[in-house]
Amino acid sequence: MTQLFGGIEAGGTKFVCAVGTGPDDIRAEHRFPTTTPAETIGQAVAFFREQEGVYGRLAAIGIAAFGPLDPDPRSPTFGYITSTPKPGWANTDFAGTIQAALGVSVGFDTDVNGAALGEHRWGAAQDVDTFTYLTIGTGVGGGVMVNGKLLHGLVHPELGHISLPHDWAQDPYPGRCPYHGDCLEGMTAGPAIGERWGQPAYELPTDHPAWELEAHYLALGLRTFICTLSPQRIIMGGGVMEQPQLFPLLRQKTVAYLNGYVQSPALVEHIDSYIVPPGLGNRAGVLGAIALGMQCVIG
Amino acid sequence: MTQLFGGIEAGGTKFVCAVGTGPDDIRAEHRFPTTTPAETIGQAVAFFREQEGVYGRLAAIGIAAFGPLDPDPRSPTFGYITSTPKPGWANTDFAGTIQAALGVSVGFDTDVNGAALGEHRWGAAQDVDTFTYLTIGTGVGGGVMVNGKLLHGLVHPELGHISLPHDWAQDPYPGRCPYHGDCLEGMTAGPAIGERWGQPAYELPTDHPAWELEAHYLALGLRTFICTLSPQRIIMGGGVMEQPQLFPLLRQKTVAYLNGYVQSPALVEHIDSYIVPPGLGNRAGVLGAIALGMQCVIG
Repeated sequence: MTQLFGGIEAGGTKFVCAVGTGPDDIRAEHRFPTTTPAETIGQAVAFFREQEGVYGRLAAIGIAAFGPLDPDPRSPTFGYITSTPKPGWANTDFAGTIQAALGVSVGFDTDVNGAALGEHRWGAAQDVDTFTYLTIGTGVGGGVMVNGKLLHGLVHPELGHISLPHDWAQDPYPGRCPYHGDCLEGMTAGPAIGERWGQPAYELPTDHPAWELEAHYLALGLRTFICTLSPQRIIMGGGVMEQPQLFPLLRQKTVAYLNGYVQSPALVEHIDSYIVPPGLGNRAGVLGAIALGMQCVIG
Repeated sequence: MTQLFGGIEAGGTKFVCAVGTGPDDIRAEHRFPTTTPAETIGQAVAFFREQEGVYGRLAAIGIAAFGPLDPDPRSPTFGYITSTPKPGWANTDFAGTIQAALGVSVGFDTDVNGAALGEHRWGAAQDVDTFTYLTIGTGVGGGVMVNGKLLHGLVHPELGHISLPHDWAQDPYPGRCPYHGDCLEGMTAGPAIGERWGQPAYELPTDHPAWELEAHYLALGLRTFICTLSPQRIIMGGGVMEQPQLFPLLRQKTVAYLNGYVQSPALVEHIDSYIVPPGLGNRAGVLGAIALGMQCVIG
């Protein structure tokens, strides 16, 4: 009998819960808005109990959550959402609540590390073991795999919060990160585009100067990620990246800003297969959560 | 009988070759200026042949070299210095020449990855497995260990070449990186300090405003490294960091620029043991080379 896994894609605005074994085998899925921890986690528990009634015991559940969070199994606050600005969610024992309610092993990591794991297992990173997954949407974040393992270190990467060059004379927009103002997230997330140009990003025409500027800041970020994380591939997802005109601009500017310093055929000759959309499309989140569940049982 | 290892710290201005097993057991050491590849590598070979006459066969030799270089054993140009601007050294088969001349296993990596490995084995990173080693000297570079292994990925990290915020109105100095102008290396390496202030960095008094500005740019860089590599510790070596007034400034500014976003006791309570000088002092380079030699035999 096939072992089934549960996955929780825990986003700041909605939760997606699913049961299955991979992209071609999702047995059930349920979406609902993120409200209080008690209500939202309660709905997830109810969904999995119902599915266990149909399919039997789940082998494990993976949680891919917004953060910051504590992904270190050796830490006393493992499984907690920690310092999030999201009202009511700071210091929430998310993994522990799920584990206690359902009595299964729980994998727990950031939404973006989960998505990276899913892309490695089933998506656009199956042939590399050191790569970066970025999402540019309501916020900006990234998951990082190095030598086949997700990067945690001190806490986990916060790729949206790097500092960037900002020419205030050319571009007086101050950025909207409450912590850093004009960090990568502050300058390039969807709401920043909307605020800067006075209309929602998705309403801007594809030839609007917004996209050139967006690609400029994103490419400065990618140069920094290439110089630090040395990824063999960069996968870029999230709502903003659904603007297809961004990919060619971003590839061209990233190569220009590196200016030939990092010599690799991947950059010089094959940039189209170096900076790519997710293989799992907008399913990377929930499939990543299932992959986190699988990782805690079968590695 | 103790197995001895050779190490070559291959710098842009000088080579240091040594034979031994670690910081308390260096049997012989030889320093000479970096000239042409043929002459300089020839001198290294002559030194190791002489030592083998005294101590018998070496178990392996590690090379910790300036770059960019190719550290990937699966690559046809493994062991080469690749695209370096240093005259005569581009496309030099360094590891292959040493291996052919001496008939030993050769470990090959960047000088800074070597130093990181040495700090992990004997220095300030013995108790962590995910950390960053930075050197601020003639250039700026960094080695990165993640989950106990040196990070390579696409090529290897180039931590000196990240982009930084640069307020041209406050600070019109354009930076001196030939590739990127005002990247981290372009703004903070020793020669940049000297050029900006019109006198060598080491002659500037400890209360000169140069150090406040130097700490400003370095702290912006550390914020980016913390947000990308999530190191459990940051080790800062190199000639510029021998100015002891830099450490307190750098710690204070790094915490300020993170602005509470990354929550960890290491940052909030123990910053003095988070941003630290190398445990091996200015011996990190040559000991790192020996550690690279050891790694290819005993892991």
